Amino acid sequence: MSHIEDNIVRAGFSLPLPAVPAGFYLPALRQGDMVYTSGQLPLKDGRLVEPGGKGKVNEINQQDAATAAGAALLNALSAVKFLIGSLDAVERIVKLTVYVASESYFSGQHLVANGASSLLVEFFGEKGRHVRSAVGVAELPLDASVELELIVACNPSPKPE
Amino acid sequence: MSHIEDNIVRAGFSLPLPAVPAGFYLPALRQGDMVYTSGQLPLKDGRLVEPGGKGKVNEINQQDAATAAGAALLNALSAVKFLIGSLDAVERIVKLTVYVASESYFSGQHLVANGASSLLVEFFGEKGRHVRSAVGVAELPLDASVELELIVACNPSPKPE
Amino acid sequence: MSHIEDNIVRAGFSLPLPAVPAGFYLPALRQGDMVYTSGQLPLKDGRLVEPGGKGKVNEINQQDAATAAGAALLNALSAVKFLIGSLDAVERIVKLTVYVASESYFSGQHLVANGASSLLVEFFGEKGRHVRSAVGVAELPLDASVELELIVACNPSPKPE
Repeated sequence: MSHIEDNIVRAGFSLPLPAVPAGFYLPALRQGDMVYTSGQLPLKDGRLVEPGGKGKVNEINQQDAATAAGAALLNALSAVKFLIGSLDAVERIVKLTVYVASESYFSGQHLVANGASSLLVEFFGEKGRHVRSAVGVAELPLDASVELELIVACNPSPKPE
Repeated sequence: MSHIEDNIVRAGFSLPLPAVPAGFYLPALRQGDMVYTSGQLPLKDGRLVEPGGKGKVNEINQQDAATAAGAALLNALSAVKFLIGSLDAVERIVKLTVYVASESYFSGQHLVANGASSLLVEFFGEKGRHVRSAVGVAELPLDASVELELIVACNPSPKPE
Repeated sequence: MSHIEDNIVRAGFSLPLPAVPAGFYLPALRQGDMVYTSGQLPLKDGRLVEPGGKGKVNEINQQDAATAAGAALLNALSAVKFLIGSLDAVERIVKLTVYVASESYFSGQHLVANGASSLLVEFFGEKGRHVRSAVGVAELPLDASVELELIVACNPSPKPE
């Protein structure tokens, strides 16, 4: 097991199997040394995680939504791993964008996003410190509470292709 | 006509003339081998396409909005073409971000976005498979139903500059 | 003082001190020759600027929100400066994304975003012309009216690291 995946397991999580690519787009894509992921939902075994993964976020359920953001992040990292072979080939977590389906007057999107940001630092250490935007959107696909995307820099050609 | 533009015409579409750059920003910009577009609206001849290009999206008009997403995509591709000279110089469609002006409880943003994603694959084949985020926003400029932006990788220096 | 900072002062503005990095993420990050900023709010001395920096935007307060977008931009430029040493090392402003917390039926997000776009051109001249997306979101962290992020290309190694 890779060093980073070891950190993930030690933190009490596991990397899900990668999603089957939907028709027209890919879970992740490499261009040069940059990997971009698609927007990832807090899905586990094909369903939105409960509690927290479904519906609009407010002051009451924001902690559950933060946990759901962690689940979405694991899907993003899984997509990266299956593209580049190992999370140890990640040179830097560059950028995280977090969209939070927000009820009117809920303005704690940054707290929900911390559910993903904190894991990046826990898993990757200094390499996990990233730039981030967190915004409150009206609705997300499948009525998900959170959608997030990653940009990651990886080492040149970590495996022969 | 270029190979890709031939595909566009064969699919029953045509590439619009590029938008006149608005004051402070550009329709598309090249940095190294990456081309970024501005957010593109489903405008045709200066107006939001009807039906589907205007107003908030719900279960009733989502198919029209998907068609409008295709119109916005053509504007994005037009901006790319007039920047780099030919769509045949596109090496890879990297990333598509689709913002859908959504009525409360509409959660089919991914279906609206497919109206653009499907065309990318139809026009560019395997090079058209991209990563994508689709989110439901509150409002868009001009009361548009859809706004989308592209990141594209292109061949080094496709034309002398 | 740098040439660009001179332009900023001549335009009647000043670059704020950089924000103290919050726990898990960074105000800005350099990867190769690209600098990405986190989403920046219209904060000044730790508070949302008034008027215009707080609450949802509509036809009445859109000009104030445009001014607030300028305040958020100054925070973004400050983050870039303290990362790369000088704004004179900016080769190109590449991309600006502006999220506007919008009341229902307000569709002037592009006018709010112009409050930042216009300054980029005023400060950087031709290098300041960028691609841009402006969207209307439901809510933003801290009930801010505007959040924006920048992607900037900079000269190779402007300072020894």
